[in-house]
Amino acid sequence: MAAVVPLVTAQSAPEDTLKFLSDLVEADLELVNKIVVERMQSPVTLIPLLAGHLIESGGKRLRPMLTLASAKAFGYRGNNHLMLAAAVEFIHTATLLHDDVIDESGMRRGKVAAHIVWGNQPSVLVGDFLFSRAFQLMVECGNLRVLDILSRAAAVIAEGEVMQLSAANDTATSEDTYLKVISAKTAELFAAAAEVGAVVAGFDGIEADAMRAYGHDLGIAFQLVDDALDYAGSSDAMGKSVGDDFREGKITLPIVLAYARGNDIERAFWRRTLEAGKQSDEDLAEAIRILNRREAIEETLMRARRFGDRAHAALARVQQNRVISALDAVIDFCISRAY
Amino acid sequence: MAAVVPLVTAQSAPEDTLKFLSDLVEADLELVNKIVVERMQSPVTLIPLLAGHLIESGGKRLRPMLTLASAKAFGYRGNNHLMLAAAVEFIHTATLLHDDVIDESGMRRGKVAAHIVWGNQPSVLVGDFLFSRAFQLMVECGNLRVLDILSRAAAVIAEGEVMQLSAANDTATSEDTYLKVISAKTAELFAAAAEVGAVVAGFDGIEADAMRAYGHDLGIAFQLVDDALDYAGSSDAMGKSVGDDFREGKITLPIVLAYARGNDIERAFWRRTLEAGKQSDEDLAEAIRILNRREAIEETLMRARRFGDRAHAALARVQQNRVISALDAVIDFCISRAY
Repeated sequence: MAAVVPLVTAQSAPEDTLKFLSDLVEADLELVNKIVVERMQSPVTLIPLLAGHLIESGGKRLRPMLTLASAKAFGYRGNNHLMLAAAVEFIHTATLLHDDVIDESGMRRGKVAAHIVWGNQPSVLVGDFLFSRAFQLMVECGNLRVLDILSRAAAVIAEGEVMQLSAANDTATSEDTYLKVISAKTAELFAAAAEVGAVVAGFDGIEADAMRAYGHDLGIAFQLVDDALDYAGSSDAMGKSVGDDFREGKITLPIVLAYARGNDIERAFWRRTLEAGKQSDEDLAEAIRILNRREAIEETLMRARRFGDRAHAALARVQQNRVISALDAVIDFCISRAY
Repeated sequence: MAAVVPLVTAQSAPEDTLKFLSDLVEADLELVNKIVVERMQSPVTLIPLLAGHLIESGGKRLRPMLTLASAKAFGYRGNNHLMLAAAVEFIHTATLLHDDVIDESGMRRGKVAAHIVWGNQPSVLVGDFLFSRAFQLMVECGNLRVLDILSRAAAVIAEGEVMQLSAANDTATSEDTYLKVISAKTAELFAAAAEVGAVVAGFDGIEADAMRAYGHDLGIAFQLVDDALDYAGSSDAMGKSVGDDFREGKITLPIVLAYARGNDIERAFWRRTLEAGKQSDEDLAEAIRILNRREAIEETLMRARRFGDRAHAALARVQQNRVISALDAVIDFCISRAY
């Protein structure tokens, strides 16, 4: 039986591995934030109010940073990467708004979710507005290849969300199905964000492919760590509550692994709490005990590290420079959040 | 006191005024339907199932027909107008899916609304998917001016929907506010659909402007007639129920006019039934009596005819041919639905 996985150790602080990149793109990111605030404006006052609630509450801006850094890594000198990074952030925000409506989750980025403050209806519509604004920004850049990548990504993300709905509350979901869901739902935008940076810089061939592969595998690693943290993190660090996934009956990789390895009593527990949604106050603690007994969190993090390794390998395929090194360190940031 | 407005007369059948156009674009429209069915496919089976429920139930396909006819009117010889018409239909369908979630209305195109069959969550996500597919189609056409027009239209539509939410259940909504809402929510897509037809044919100047103005005013007329029909039509003809707007507490032009002209007792009636949402079985009949007493339906139709006249005038600004004549007849179709 495994010991409880230690999630806080004395290793180098995870912030340092992100700071390397955030320092490099700091000035650009400030300009992106200006574009974001400017383009979320509307004479319909509820729109900037609701969008601002989510956007100004921060988040790490990881996705737009990927676009900025990727463009910089390939020597881009124009301003279109700023617009594209803003578009990526808008797509992400629109997805969160629609996702919150769907998940009925109570917290987002450490604040009460928008749909709880204003209701589901404006959240759906403001999501649509931001999504449209994202396309307007891309159109202004005038690069059809970029438009192709990001419009395809948006369709894939929606497919992933529907796929997740179909798998929701099904404890027998396979690891393969689960990876397909997060590949579409989460990793696709990471992939597209990194890819368009190279494309806008004119590196539309193997460099764009490598950046896409990097973004994709980073996105998977990021999501798997997120899944693990939901059963083992602290609310402060995540900006959401421990046990959110459990309470919502979300089938994430720790559950998939523990269910596959579980005995009859454990499977009955997962079916009752996640499929039938019958939970009592003590069930989260029991869930964490079973996950540890089955080494499901440890194993999830091992999978995350494996995707992290693939992301490192993808970056190794392009011309090295300090921006690429910083992107490389982001992989370690994503993994080390769990430790 | 006005007599009840006669809504079915012995005038020429409204179908004839639409048939003129639908005959002209019939072959193209069949190709558009093929593109629509092809592009709504996904390995995630719930997506074509849910999208097909709405798309295959028909509707008049008025918006894609505007794109096809407009391209044809300006002598376009390629195939991009087919993709753009499919994109317009996808944007419209996505809007309907998100609108249904919001309205909690029970019927759409004569069928039970998708969100009642599958729940709100897939309706939101499949709407997102179709919206993304619309952009992919536009990107394939490779015309940035068209992308600009349609992405702007999508943002304006979302703004109109949020504006409508803010005005919802407010009986003191002004006629001006109401016209702004339907101009954004309904007329913008009519305008963009007609405009991109001219643009794709290479007529990006005064012709595109005229087609845009035509589409916009046609859209307003169409919506106003819809509003009137909701209190005076038959369920069969509309594919939705008489009194839907009333039951949902929607403030449409007939209500705006009747409220402005009403006495204290009538205003109290509107506030109770639409603002407070307290309705009994007899209230719809009483609502119709008050609307007729205040000539609100008659007046709404008069406004519709005025916008119809403006649409005729817009068309008069371009080179006349039989396609333009057919588009002209569509105005009469939209108006005559009410008689």
